[in-house]
Amino acid sequence: MAKKGILLVISGFSGAGKGTVVNRLREKYDEYALSISMTSRAPRPGDVEGVNYFFVTREKFEKTIAENGLLEYAEYCGNYYGTPRAFVEEQLNAGKNVILEIEIQGATNIKKAFPESLLIFLTPPSASELEKRLKGRGTETEEVIRKRLKRAAEESAGMDSYDFIIVNDDLEECVEEVHRTIELAHNQPLRCADFVADIKEQLKKYN
Amino acid sequence: MAKKGILLVISGFSGAGKGTVVNRLREKYDEYALSISMTSRAPRPGDVEGVNYFFVTREKFEKTIAENGLLEYAEYCGNYYGTPRAFVEEQLNAGKNVILEIEIQGATNIKKAFPESLLIFLTPPSASELEKRLKGRGTETEEVIRKRLKRAAEESAGMDSYDFIIVNDDLEECVEEVHRTIELAHNQPLRCADFVADIKEQLKKYN
Repeated sequence: MAKKGILLVISGFSGAGKGTVVNRLREKYDEYALSISMTSRAPRPGDVEGVNYFFVTREKFEKTIAENGLLEYAEYCGNYYGTPRAFVEEQLNAGKNVILEIEIQGATNIKKAFPESLLIFLTPPSASELEKRLKGRGTETEEVIRKRLKRAAEESAGMDSYDFIIVNDDLEECVEEVHRTIELAHNQPLRCADFVADIKEQLKKYN
Repeated sequence: MAKKGILLVISGFSGAGKGTVVNRLREKYDEYALSISMTSRAPRPGDVEGVNYFFVTREKFEKTIAENGLLEYAEYCGNYYGTPRAFVEEQLNAGKNVILEIEIQGATNIKKAFPESLLIFLTPPSASELEKRLKGRGTETEEVIRKRLKRAAEESAGMDSYDFIIVNDDLEECVEEVHRTIELAHNQPLRCADFVADIKEQLKKYN
């Protein structure tokens, strides 16, 4: 089957190891590209244009919305954040899987705009393991950890709307499981529609 | 995640190699069991009770229907054929994946009765390869081959209602792809509902 890339949305609780999984996936395999968000917020020290974000003015952002140039967007604290459509489509057509690391509301919007996207939710094996990991970082206050766990409790309500739920217990195993999931997702009818249409067409002559 | 078995429905064009794939899968892995159909038709020479079918009277079959003892059933040429529920459930609870090799109408009925079943459609890489394989067997008349190809053309309309479409080009690769698909299907929310419910429950205390 011809392989166009897959738009892969990765969500998960804070502390589930999303960033580490995504980095390892990109280290191991060439066929992944990271989607870079567009934002109207001002760059902060250390921010690199085209790496962390594409920084644009509010006017330019609104023009991009009007031109249907974003797959999804949202406004937080007076700033726009969105996913530029053109970059995603170019990469998918080149056979790359494009990774979007976003939270559940954005994930749901992507699925509506792009039904053939693949939504993966990463989770630690248990809530106590999540708590242990957040505390183990040693970088956050008790208060921040408490807020993240509360947020995880809220987010868990949306787990069922993902295509696959993958447990991140051992990093390498988790990365392989995500990679195999994407490979096999190519066999779902929505994502091999061209192959199915071809074989139906070929079989017509026998009917 | 706790692993209950998966009810695996395998369909595909005549000539797609369903039987060979199923046999190889069972040879390689212990965790598969074959569902045995119940029928009201009379045994034919060579038929073995409990291997090819469970042979019962029409009355016994109708009693089993009335008791909700079948996952699905149909009547062909005056004989009943159906899938006994008890055997399937026992095997699934024991962690075995139960394989049902049935055609599309039965597959659709299974999915309705048992939404967590996994429907896989096997196909050769192309229609010309299908024709080549059917002719290559050298066991069927031109007329029978023509009928099978016509039937394949009809069946292809239903390919989209399967969960996964797997190409049988190389047997061993195909068997591995089916096996990996079943392993990963455990991560779909419908099939890891217990794990998801557990983690939601555990997280409640932080809310």
